[in-house]
Amino acid sequence: MTYVFAFDHPHSQPPMSLKDLLGGKGANLAEMTSVLGLPVPHGFTITTDACRDYMSEGWPAGLDEEVAAQVKALEASMGKSLGDATDPLLVSVRSGAKFSMPGMMDTVLNLGLNDASVQGLADQTGDERFAYDSYRRFVSMYGRIVLGVPGEELEERFEAARAGSGATSDADIPAAALVELVEELKEVVAKHTGQPFPQDPADQLRGAIEAVFQSWGGARAVAYRAHERIPHDLGTAVNVQAMVFGNRDDNSGTGVGFTRDPATGEAGAYGDFLVNAQGEDVVAGIRKTLHLDEMRRLFPSIYDELLGIFDRLERHYRDMCDTEFTIDQGKLWMLQTRVGKRGGVAALRMAVDMTTDERMTLTHAEAVQRVTAEHLEQVLHPQVGGGDVAVIATGLAASPGAGVGRAYFTADGAAEAAGRGEAVILVRTETSPEDVHGMIVAKGILTSRGGLVSHAAVVARGWGTPAVVGADGVHISGNTFTAGGVTVTEGDVISVDGSTGRVMLGAVEVTVSEPPPEFATILEWADEIRAGKMAVRANADTGADAANARRFGAEGIGLCRTEHMFLAEDRLPIVRRMIMAETDEAEAAALEELRVAQKADFYEVLEAMDGLPVTIRLLDPPLHEFLPRTEELLIKGAKVGLTPDEGHLLKAAEAWHEFNPMLGVRGVRLGVIKPGLYAMQVRALMEAAADRVAAGGTPIVEIMIPLTVGREEMALARGWVEGAVAGVAARAAESGVAASGVDVTIGTMIETPRAALRAGDIAEVADFFSFGTNDLTQMTFGFSRDDVESRLMPAYLGQGLLKRNPFETIDAAGVGELVKIAALRGREAKPGLKLGVCGEHGGDPESIALFHDAGLDYVSCSPFRVPIARLSAAHAILAGG
Amino acid sequence: MTYVFAFDHPHSQPPMSLKDLLGGKGANLAEMTSVLGLPVPHGFTITTDACRDYMSEGWPAGLDEEVAAQVKALEASMGKSLGDATDPLLVSVRSGAKFSMPGMMDTVLNLGLNDASVQGLADQTGDERFAYDSYRRFVSMYGRIVLGVPGEELEERFEAARAGSGATSDADIPAAALVELVEELKEVVAKHTGQPFPQDPADQLRGAIEAVFQSWGGARAVAYRAHERIPHDLGTAVNVQAMVFGNRDDNSGTGVGFTRDPATGEAGAYGDFLVNAQGEDVVAGIRKTLHLDEMRRLFPSIYDELLGIFDRLERHYRDMCDTEFTIDQGKLWMLQTRVGKRGGVAALRMAVDMTTDERMTLTHAEAVQRVTAEHLEQVLHPQVGGGDVAVIATGLAASPGAGVGRAYFTADGAAEAAGRGEAVILVRTETSPEDVHGMIVAKGILTSRGGLVSHAAVVARGWGTPAVVGADGVHISGNTFTAGGVTVTEGDVISVDGSTGRVMLGAVEVTVSEPPPEFATILEWADEIRAGKMAVRANADTGADAANARRFGAEGIGLCRTEHMFLAEDRLPIVRRMIMAETDEAEAAALEELRVAQKADFYEVLEAMDGLPVTIRLLDPPLHEFLPRTEELLIKGAKVGLTPDEGHLLKAAEAWHEFNPMLGVRGVRLGVIKPGLYAMQVRALMEAAADRVAAGGTPIVEIMIPLTVGREEMALARGWVEGAVAGVAARAAESGVAASGVDVTIGTMIETPRAALRAGDIAEVADFFSFGTNDLTQMTFGFSRDDVESRLMPAYLGQGLLKRNPFETIDAAGVGELVKIAALRGREAKPGLKLGVCGEHGGDPESIALFHDAGLDYVSCSPFRVPIARLSAAHAILAGG
Repeated sequence: MTYVFAFDHPHSQPPMSLKDLLGGKGANLAEMTSVLGLPVPHGFTITTDACRDYMSEGWPAGLDEEVAAQVKALEASMGKSLGDATDPLLVSVRSGAKFSMPGMMDTVLNLGLNDASVQGLADQTGDERFAYDSYRRFVSMYGRIVLGVPGEELEERFEAARAGSGATSDADIPAAALVELVEELKEVVAKHTGQPFPQDPADQLRGAIEAVFQSWGGARAVAYRAHERIPHDLGTAVNVQAMVFGNRDDNSGTGVGFTRDPATGEAGAYGDFLVNAQGEDVVAGIRKTLHLDEMRRLFPSIYDELLGIFDRLERHYRDMCDTEFTIDQGKLWMLQTRVGKRGGVAALRMAVDMTTDERMTLTHAEAVQRVTAEHLEQVLHPQVGGGDVAVIATGLAASPGAGVGRAYFTADGAAEAAGRGEAVILVRTETSPEDVHGMIVAKGILTSRGGLVSHAAVVARGWGTPAVVGADGVHISGNTFTAGGVTVTEGDVISVDGSTGRVMLGAVEVTVSEPPPEFATILEWADEIRAGKMAVRANADTGADAANARRFGAEGIGLCRTEHMFLAEDRLPIVRRMIMAETDEAEAAALEELRVAQKADFYEVLEAMDGLPVTIRLLDPPLHEFLPRTEELLIKGAKVGLTPDEGHLLKAAEAWHEFNPMLGVRGVRLGVIKPGLYAMQVRALMEAAADRVAAGGTPIVEIMIPLTVGREEMALARGWVEGAVAGVAARAAESGVAASGVDVTIGTMIETPRAALRAGDIAEVADFFSFGTNDLTQMTFGFSRDDVESRLMPAYLGQGLLKRNPFETIDAAGVGELVKIAALRGREAKPGLKLGVCGEHGGDPESIALFHDAGLDYVSCSPFRVPIARLSAAHAILAGG
Repeated sequence: MTYVFAFDHPHSQPPMSLKDLLGGKGANLAEMTSVLGLPVPHGFTITTDACRDYMSEGWPAGLDEEVAAQVKALEASMGKSLGDATDPLLVSVRSGAKFSMPGMMDTVLNLGLNDASVQGLADQTGDERFAYDSYRRFVSMYGRIVLGVPGEELEERFEAARAGSGATSDADIPAAALVELVEELKEVVAKHTGQPFPQDPADQLRGAIEAVFQSWGGARAVAYRAHERIPHDLGTAVNVQAMVFGNRDDNSGTGVGFTRDPATGEAGAYGDFLVNAQGEDVVAGIRKTLHLDEMRRLFPSIYDELLGIFDRLERHYRDMCDTEFTIDQGKLWMLQTRVGKRGGVAALRMAVDMTTDERMTLTHAEAVQRVTAEHLEQVLHPQVGGGDVAVIATGLAASPGAGVGRAYFTADGAAEAAGRGEAVILVRTETSPEDVHGMIVAKGILTSRGGLVSHAAVVARGWGTPAVVGADGVHISGNTFTAGGVTVTEGDVISVDGSTGRVMLGAVEVTVSEPPPEFATILEWADEIRAGKMAVRANADTGADAANARRFGAEGIGLCRTEHMFLAEDRLPIVRRMIMAETDEAEAAALEELRVAQKADFYEVLEAMDGLPVTIRLLDPPLHEFLPRTEELLIKGAKVGLTPDEGHLLKAAEAWHEFNPMLGVRGVRLGVIKPGLYAMQVRALMEAAADRVAAGGTPIVEIMIPLTVGREEMALARGWVEGAVAGVAARAAESGVAASGVDVTIGTMIETPRAALRAGDIAEVADFFSFGTNDLTQMTFGFSRDDVESRLMPAYLGQGLLKRNPFETIDAAGVGELVKIAALRGREAKPGLKLGVCGEHGGDPESIALFHDAGLDYVSCSPFRVPIARLSAAHAILAGG
């Protein structure tokens, strides 16, 4: 097995397709070197195979020899040697996993410097200060990352040296002070490790490679992958590359460049750079960066060269690229490229633009694939609404959307407050990977330093968290900040507007944003892909919800929960009378009142969804949900006694009390116990439908029976429904109205494991199935959401007992198998059986892919998720081929 | 398709094997006629096919023609014709399903009589009284059964005729009165049907056949089948047979005979008979019957002939047979035979006896198959214990066992009282199929009339319900009875002893019976069949339970519920301290106290089961089960305030409260939240095991993790357990004790649907699976036992939505499939994986058959069910081939 490949290795396929093996960075470095012939410093990549073998069995046999051979070849091609006392080669060692994990993994620069070669570097460049500045950077970085020396101790020495030399900036520290500093840093390292700082470049290299391997399993990286859903067993590649120096002089520099604006999607180069600096200075956000435009003035020919490279990259990758580059004494070097991350607005704009950009000519399908669910979520994010707002500072608009919450100044503080249920804005001078747990929970992020490619901005954009960065006017001190003459203390409410960069005191009004024009275009193209393959419906219980869902593009209602109609304030007393009725007459009278009310509700829903299918689920929840809690009545009774009415309520609540309501008398079981209930609902529905026909409408009614476990129940319930439907038709005929011509089908939810297993039988008496994946998940796992999601799920996810919260993304291995079994058996028994899903998973992209795979005809989700479901369904179809 | 076969039809296989087609009665009539050549009146059988076709599509095409042809052949062979005015043929029309349903289905006798043929019968027999007695019986029976005329109205006329004629018994009513009575009865029929009584024998026959077909779907029959678990779609055959007359004169008679005593199993003929009577008179229990022995005196040669037939039947059927016979003017006719139903004691005795009876030489396997689980249940039934009892009457000991309860005098009253939770003794003059719903719920049955083959006795024996019948001294009047000078009013407590026939005032002491010696023999043979194929363990939580289980033959413990140790009065305060501990130290201290207590418990269990495997389930129930109910504390708090301790308890109860505890933080989930708990339990267990080794014992420990959903959980829990096991071993080694050598394996329950689906993964980290079919059933159906079993299950079973209560017999179609999937996937991943079941289904015969089929190694059930499980496992193995 070959563990190491040079960037110019002649792979048998385009290196950019070898990300599994070479990691993203390594694959793109090889692509730029061997395919595009761009100016890339030589180097080699240690594969992810090596990392995986290291993780399972320790340092791979033969790896040392391969690395040594590659180093030798690198030395030969550069005409320099590692550790050479006259003209030394320096290398960078960088991680590079298949998926980008910004800032999560370790990097070591300037490797190869030791007490001898630092002199060679000084001699060769004639710049002792530069050489020792490089060496002090290397000792610090290597000490901290590879040898585990606390960063603060090293930083202290640096600060002391700067102060001692009277320098005002890093660049002003004189060479002599740096020489002394290096010695001090080496002492700190020796004190901590009990060993002198390693002088042999081969030892340095092995240590750095191992540190990169180990950083894959570090807590930060694990947490990041868990959040980003990146598998933990991929491993990282390691890239060893000859150093070039952006910090050599003022004819040098370094930058990060995008071929288009990653925030807006606007065509044209975009980025930040710094003169006389190394790459870490740009990314860390420590120095205020210059806009790329300024390069045109400072480095005109290099600027042109860079733009030429950007053009070639866009043609080659057919996408927006994100690059890192360095100018070393007037020569441009490309250090890395990749297809760039982007915000939602930018993703939409680029995807649409690139279909007409003749250099790329994306197909509509490709454009749709370029936009992710997260992108859509971002453009659907809330925005600051109208009205006066108290702007106390302005920074860079780093990640769009409005965020409101209480200010917290540490990640721990933010995480704790969020744990208490508070909305939180994380306020930091700058962020680092150590702050991720606070950033994850934040409704918004505010930093006083750093640019648009700073850690805070990149991470926030990736997650769609509103962020304002580099807000100069914000002065942070402990647990307060001052801005615009106002002091904000921990716990005070502030607002950030990541779309404009404004920071505001108090809670601003937040409104839903108007998505950009490309939003509609992409969804239209997605709809074309989905047409006839997978429909998207909404879960909506009222006419207003239905109308809203239709605006979002819903093609029907997949779940209308009739119990929501029962809970309305004016209905509840009637529902209670029905439950507590002591005679059949009293029950019938209450049902009759409910029928009149429900009929009006159904009319509104059918009107809003006219011409589209509307699935009405008959009453599902246990009856005690409509009664007060016994505890309240018991306490009142014990204290002051109950009124006769309250006494009746208590008696009913006790009679209907259940130990495990989730597994109790719900759904069709209610129908068995109170058959008049379902008949009433169907009558109300069919009368509403008939009225819609009379009004010229086209109601399409799907009546759904909840919580069946087998064929017999469904057959019985079907009988009730058909009886009620026929009754309405007969009464209509008596009144001289012609048969209504309402399109009615009768189906069931599949939400118990048994129903999934018995789907073949059930299909014989059902016109459609709708998977209720919430209940199915609860029963398959034996997890009551109410009881385990807050108490148990964090522990289960944290300890890796579950990869995902199965209530968010369907559990493919368990619940998903039941869905597939049911779909298969149902269709075997009744080819063409209509299949859908109406659990919350219906709006989750990964779950939608599974549902498509299982052959479902539609998904149904909340109205606001409909655009995401439309896009995700198209993705699933495109991925399915 | 042929719908009708004569009894002497040359079938291609032994007719007795054709019960599916011919029904039990028809198959045996054909066997006796065509194979054994016994004196059977000629006739033919209309098949169950015809009944099924009738049920689905109405009167079968071609059936009339086939019946007409068979009638013609019957007439030819008998030399008589139906309806003939000179020498008429009369026939009986009787139902005969595959499984005997005593008294549930309809019978019509004397069919073929009409106004002309009654005269022919009178002429031919020279007995007008007999002819008109037969006609009046026919008109009544046909009117009631076929034409739906209320029986009371017909009965009234008969009573009036008897009274009017001054007769003291039925036989004394003079011919002239009977002639008049027939006319009156025909008028009653005509009034009710609007048609004259049918005179055409072909019409009569078709009507009778149709009535039998319809009686299959009658409420009584449906209820009986539901109770006896006979499928509803079998249909019944109809047997049409030439009549012979036991009621012709005093040289005639009719009887019911068993080839052995069906109550005791003693060899030798046994039965009842009546002189000058028809069969219905014997079965109905209206007249006091004679013992069969008396036949020797009254009909010596016929008695010898009958005994010879009994011998031939036993040789042929290799079993005890139950027969009906009639003597018609000195000639013996066999009207029916079948393998006889028997009580538990008799079944055991016969099965063992027949292995050495040279006429039969049953193998041990056959003997084991002759004994059913119900038989064992009967011999395990409670008996009247020592002490004085107030015997107020004595009757026939019809069904063994002691029953205690409140007297109710109607089936409705009994059913209502049982519904309120009362133990009930049903007291009736005699019972009929209309009383079945009251008999089902009764703890005992008492009748004042009827013999050992009366309806009450047969039904009670079949169900193992203690019964005393024909208690002459009991005088029933409305809702009271007097006996032995005592008046018993509805609701008073009485006791019946079905083993001795005693009726006692008040509640007697009840003890568990000592089974007969054949009990052990049969179980020993069952054990030989099971050996190495399916073991039987017990669910036992204490040393005493374990010892008891071992006496019943348990081969280990399949489920030791450690929570039962937590609930002991002296433990509960410690458990509560552990739950409410606010510091790690306090929690550890409480756990330490529990460890000491649990260790002693484990020691006792391991001692009682020394040398046999003991499966210890780590704590399963949610913690709030160990806390008081919040309601109680809330009410007390509202009324008089809480003590500080109570306040803490309330806080804890609220904190641990769950909405759906069945789906909450239980089992391994508790372990995730309180890992010290499981470590404590394992430590206590392993220390107890080490002490057992030190005491010379051989503990075999199986540690079981409850409620897993996947491999990750099980791997984590396995780690805890292994850590604790290793810890105990290390501490033992430190104390100079050698490694204990305890045999320990670690497995999991499979009780969530997801665990069943993921069994392949889980098996990789589990040494055994034990199916927890109670929880698995709850989650697969979404049925919480606590909530649905009383409220919903009766409706579900009654309406046929479920065939069985899935908590009693495993749901083969749903839960059973999950068991099979899990067994298959588990064994695929780990061949030889040990599989067992410890839900309550482990003691249910039908479920055991499914578990054997699924490849399980053992079942575990409550100690008292162990004998039944041993037998049922042998049955399953024999059935599986």
